[in-house]
Amino acid sequence: MLGNFTYHNPTKLYFGTNALEALGEELMKYGKTVQLIYGGGSIKKSGLYSEILEILLACGKEVVEDGGVMPNPTYERLKVGAKLAKDNAVDLLLAVGGGSVCDYAKAVSVSAYCDDDPWEKYYVRFEEPTCKIIPVGCVLTMSGTGSEMNGGSVITNREEKLKIGHVFGSDVMPKFSILDPELTYTLPERQMVAGIYDIFNHICEQYFSGDDDNVTDYLAEGLMKAVISASREAKKDPRNYEARSNIMWAATWALNTLLNKGKTTDWEVHMLGQAVGAYTDATHGMTLAAVSLPYYRHILPYGLQKFKRFALNVWGVEPKGTDEEIALKGLSAMEDWMKELGLTLNISDLGATPDMIEGIADATRVQEGGYHILTRDEIVKILRESL
Amino acid sequence: MLGNFTYHNPTKLYFGTNALEALGEELMKYGKTVQLIYGGGSIKKSGLYSEILEILLACGKEVVEDGGVMPNPTYERLKVGAKLAKDNAVDLLLAVGGGSVCDYAKAVSVSAYCDDDPWEKYYVRFEEPTCKIIPVGCVLTMSGTGSEMNGGSVITNREEKLKIGHVFGSDVMPKFSILDPELTYTLPERQMVAGIYDIFNHICEQYFSGDDDNVTDYLAEGLMKAVISASREAKKDPRNYEARSNIMWAATWALNTLLNKGKTTDWEVHMLGQAVGAYTDATHGMTLAAVSLPYYRHILPYGLQKFKRFALNVWGVEPKGTDEEIALKGLSAMEDWMKELGLTLNISDLGATPDMIEGIADATRVQEGGYHILTRDEIVKILRESL
Repeated sequence: MLGNFTYHNPTKLYFGTNALEALGEELMKYGKTVQLIYGGGSIKKSGLYSEILEILLACGKEVVEDGGVMPNPTYERLKVGAKLAKDNAVDLLLAVGGGSVCDYAKAVSVSAYCDDDPWEKYYVRFEEPTCKIIPVGCVLTMSGTGSEMNGGSVITNREEKLKIGHVFGSDVMPKFSILDPELTYTLPERQMVAGIYDIFNHICEQYFSGDDDNVTDYLAEGLMKAVISASREAKKDPRNYEARSNIMWAATWALNTLLNKGKTTDWEVHMLGQAVGAYTDATHGMTLAAVSLPYYRHILPYGLQKFKRFALNVWGVEPKGTDEEIALKGLSAMEDWMKELGLTLNISDLGATPDMIEGIADATRVQEGGYHILTRDEIVKILRESL
Repeated sequence: MLGNFTYHNPTKLYFGTNALEALGEELMKYGKTVQLIYGGGSIKKSGLYSEILEILLACGKEVVEDGGVMPNPTYERLKVGAKLAKDNAVDLLLAVGGGSVCDYAKAVSVSAYCDDDPWEKYYVRFEEPTCKIIPVGCVLTMSGTGSEMNGGSVITNREEKLKIGHVFGSDVMPKFSILDPELTYTLPERQMVAGIYDIFNHICEQYFSGDDDNVTDYLAEGLMKAVISASREAKKDPRNYEARSNIMWAATWALNTLLNKGKTTDWEVHMLGQAVGAYTDATHGMTLAAVSLPYYRHILPYGLQKFKRFALNVWGVEPKGTDEEIALKGLSAMEDWMKELGLTLNISDLGATPDMIEGIADATRVQEGGYHILTRDEIVKILRESL
């Protein structure tokens, strides 16, 4: 049964080749000062940085530089960005990059004028912002996190070895996002496939929960099939526009609040993966890939009918054998596809060592929406199997 | 390939049992005068009218009554509503009913302050509004049209025997819509199944166009499967909340601009159905049902691969035989489902007579996005087969 919910997603998206042409029009809606947020400088190499700076200057903007945001943006870095935004009375935060940069921008938007400690308020107590929120706009250069059309913001606290996400409401969602699939072409293949698995797993996290025959589950299955089909084309030719555009569009819908409407969700793979990430600083999508199969095989008996449905509807497994056999064949088909993409299937390859297991287990939050609530022993077991 | 597009759908939805509780909070965002728009009075019988009036008065609103909007709202009626809105300097148009009432409210919203003739401007020349737009809110009592989360507005010009839809931009979309599936329980079964077919056909109109393997097509297939599954449950027990809530939610996503993003669309079934509606004043969904099979069988050779995919992915037809045999089996499965629901499968039962055919053909607009552009002779042939 669809539970009660509110749906509101006002982000305006410009999608396609030359979508950047819309930036000027959007910029005119905001004040003079723009904080330009980006990562390690790949946008300087690609020429995108100059292109955007030119548009900003042509629109008469004053630019506050905020480059060098790291892949897993830290609380320390957030404090720097929030001070920068407040000191310069910034009117718009323009994030140019992937999910980390967008997530960071959203964190800055609710932290600049926050009287409280933002980490404590948003990432420990999960409170909603009560201060002025600075509007965010995004130019996406990597597909995966869906951050371009949601209120999610994951921040890492290195001191406490914690990587935690807060999903803010529609006030914090980007006002606009520019999605040009060609801007993702410069991404190394490893980042591309990690992003693809992140997308796929976002759908899984929302799909593997609840027993009902809901619209949401059917949409999730359609989206998974689209990701599988497009990923194979993109693996063959990363400059296949059809494949890359479909991956980009699927990424947005995999995590823009539609797929969780009216239903419970799991998110335990993300909790495990984020804990691995806090210890290894590994690429997010790879941490998810490395823990997924041990986790799903562990919970399969508790959500047998859904895993069977997954096998039949997503992977086209023949409906022969016991429910468990069919369900396991679905996970095997998924494993084959993950190997085909070249995903990292164990956490050792990401730098995790046996002596880290207890610490990673401590850092893993236990979710209650999935088919089974993990005990600490089960978390340790799954992590050991992921080594 | 996904073509370039903009996506922006800011309508806020409150979905579920007692969703009406959110009305007060929304009303507080608008000024004092609310034009209360509704249909033939079924909301008075059900008690919904009193409930809403009580909320309006509790919020200190002045209510401008605009009841009695007919199922296919006319241009004549639109002029009355627009004058009412302007004369009373209405701050919010609150539509309580199904798609016709919502469509009418949107037409009033762009017509009240329109200096030009609204019919000519919006429904003949398809121009965008340049005047002040009055905000619209909806309380939905019938599922089908998707009008609660789009900019669509269909108006009938009885004098000219034309029923034409204009799809306005996000400024005209409802600011909020309240979707309580239980409010659809009072609908007679015939209206319920007509609404279900309207939903299904909205998906078909967007699906049966283009050759690509896009995210959109996969989402469309998922949504169609959800509608088929829920419709069977609702037919057995119209008070099955799970079924009715899934139908309501599918209706919204079938036509809230997602399924046409980056692709061409057809809409010829709607053109045929609307022309039949202009002559017979029959229920919209039934007019679509009555012309669909002759139309789809006629265009099948031109879109063979998509009809085959439809058979395999939506109806689970066995992949045996020629492409054409598989594709035709898909349409047979669809026909069986339509009979199961009790849909009207010919236009004679809707009041159309052979002598009307030429006139209906004249009133049928020819679309260019489908697999085949119809000639007038083909339109006549399809209409004759629909008799």
